Amino acid sequence: MKRTFTITGVAPRTLTRSLQANPVVLSARLFATLPSEAKVIKYHATGQPEKVLKLETEKLPQVGDNDVLVGFLAAPINPADLNMVEGVYPIGPKAPAVGGNEGVAEVLAVGSKVKGIAVDDWVIPAKPGFGTWRTHAVAPESSLLKVKKDIKPEYAAAIAVNPCTAYRLLNDFADLKPGDVIIQNGANSAVGQAVIQLAAQREVKTINIIRDRPDLGDTVERMKSYGAYMVVTEDKLGTPAFHRLISDLPKPKLGLNCVGGTSATEIARVLEKDSTLVTYGGMSRKPVQVPTSLLIFRNIQLRGFWLSRWVEEHSAEERLAMINTCWDLVKSKRLRMWAERYPLEDFAAALNRTTQAQRNRKAILVMKP
Amino acid sequence: MKRTFTITGVAPRTLTRSLQANPVVLSARLFATLPSEAKVIKYHATGQPEKVLKLETEKLPQVGDNDVLVGFLAAPINPADLNMVEGVYPIGPKAPAVGGNEGVAEVLAVGSKVKGIAVDDWVIPAKPGFGTWRTHAVAPESSLLKVKKDIKPEYAAAIAVNPCTAYRLLNDFADLKPGDVIIQNGANSAVGQAVIQLAAQREVKTINIIRDRPDLGDTVERMKSYGAYMVVTEDKLGTPAFHRLISDLPKPKLGLNCVGGTSATEIARVLEKDSTLVTYGGMSRKPVQVPTSLLIFRNIQLRGFWLSRWVEEHSAEERLAMINTCWDLVKSKRLRMWAERYPLEDFAAALNRTTQAQRNRKAILVMKP
Repeated sequence: MKRTFTITGVAPRTLTRSLQANPVVLSARLFATLPSEAKVIKYHATGQPEKVLKLETEKLPQVGDNDVLVGFLAAPINPADLNMVEGVYPIGPKAPAVGGNEGVAEVLAVGSKVKGIAVDDWVIPAKPGFGTWRTHAVAPESSLLKVKKDIKPEYAAAIAVNPCTAYRLLNDFADLKPGDVIIQNGANSAVGQAVIQLAAQREVKTINIIRDRPDLGDTVERMKSYGAYMVVTEDKLGTPAFHRLISDLPKPKLGLNCVGGTSATEIARVLEKDSTLVTYGGMSRKPVQVPTSLLIFRNIQLRGFWLSRWVEEHSAEERLAMINTCWDLVKSKRLRMWAERYPLEDFAAALNRTTQAQRNRKAILVMKP
Repeated sequence: MKRTFTITGVAPRTLTRSLQANPVVLSARLFATLPSEAKVIKYHATGQPEKVLKLETEKLPQVGDNDVLVGFLAAPINPADLNMVEGVYPIGPKAPAVGGNEGVAEVLAVGSKVKGIAVDDWVIPAKPGFGTWRTHAVAPESSLLKVKKDIKPEYAAAIAVNPCTAYRLLNDFADLKPGDVIIQNGANSAVGQAVIQLAAQREVKTINIIRDRPDLGDTVERMKSYGAYMVVTEDKLGTPAFHRLISDLPKPKLGLNCVGGTSATEIARVLEKDSTLVTYGGMSRKPVQVPTSLLIFRNIQLRGFWLSRWVEEHSAEERLAMINTCWDLVKSKRLRMWAERYPLEDFAAALNRTTQAQRNRKAILVMKP
């Protein structure tokens, strides 16, 4: 990143012309021309993302006393972002709105009453619905969380949702000890990849269910390099061969489901008594279905997990502690993220990658290549 | 009941001839001839109850030092009893075995080392699998629990499973307060009838789902006389009319499911956020099915309840406390049980009644009319 200089407590008139146009800004990059416009990926009505999302240029509002002007560095495209654009997600801004819920931005200027964030800091959105697919934004300090700056922006941009979901799934629904086994479907999703790695670090074995795909061998190899104990395709689930395959392992103490349908049923069938099948996604768009006997006689519990809800119910400090745990793992390369960078302008290509059934890499929009 | 006299601590030789044949019996009814045989409803191999269950006469074993000789007064036919006979229940004795898991018996004689049970006491089985469809049994003291004697035997016989299940369902899965609403299907089952009454006593409103039936009007009337707040037939579930009907009520904080299939799905749909759908039966033999969105975004939890498991994990004292709570409610007529008495010999008719889809009354076998 290029070196910048910051000044604090200096009256606006000593700053450059663009700052004079923003009279309440008390701190900004010296000699830097602050932007007056932003490029945004916006939808004016909910609908099919490919159709309703457009690249537009918007004028930035004044930076108020409590506001922060940020320049986004990177922002991923997550499945939930697209559900929000489609209007099928239970939360989110009303259209017209800018898409995207997570990302990392650098601070370009702060208002006179901003206390906890300074120019050149990196920040992420404090809540869902921020609209991160944009080059710049002016937002209240309270809507942003300061993070560290010591990993690549494309990783920093994508830690708060998927790795943190994996972290919670492994911590909130079972007391996992070394040698324990868990089972997950959609195991090659960004959450699934993080689950594999976080579990392996705790010496928890993962049985990973993925869809069959043309590059199956490569995918399995990479998942195993992440620490996957076993990788099995969906069509094997429930077969005698599958049951033989897992018969030497302790029964899984946790099931993770982002698919639904029979995939979830078959996972529930192999779980240890008293354990939980956690649903955090429904990629097949089919309901979760379990025989009553599993609920009654094996005391299998079915629960859901939604990170947005967790964020709502926990303090920013608790959330940052979790993010920092994942962040440090990324920094030390113990948590690898498989990302593919797309310039913001190539949004259509990034979107196309995201909606492909067997994508392996997470599409990350980069605003400052 | 006819008056009897008991003696304790008297040497066997002072007793009648039948007691002399049972030399370790230290206490028995004076001048009463103890039975040497029992009539039992037995199956020699698992299978369709109508085919495999037979009325037989068996010789009773000697009463050992730690044993108790009991004469059964009454025993219900519960659905789980029949599943056990069919061999589709996860616990139970190996065939050949006597059917029936609950019932009440009077004590006719006790062995010399029996401490907590005396002649003329009433007892119930301590664990499932006792085999209660019989006139007499000799069993270890540890396999029996002493109960009170102040309600009718046909009620005493049927408290330990269905009313206790209802009691646990209302206590273990939600913190219900006056004015709260719950919803249940199979609401005219013995458990459902108890749920209605126990809930009404706590001023908890019940939405009760039942199958349509020829005597629907009478059934609804009786359920309302028990305290049912609302009774709706299965076919109305999920319709706009149903949603209008319940729209003025607070959302149910607990769902109780003994049916499965779409009935369970529709109950899950109307539950309050963060609440639990408890499955304790699967009369439709269809799996429980819920959209992933209910699990993720509304945090609906699916759990199972199995009283046998609860009994296994709790002390006899805890269980007796629960039984006594229900017992006292029955005695004071605040918990009514709708039973139909059948002599043990009319087992086939009782069985026929039990397997009818729209039975209202619980079939209770009576051994001592």
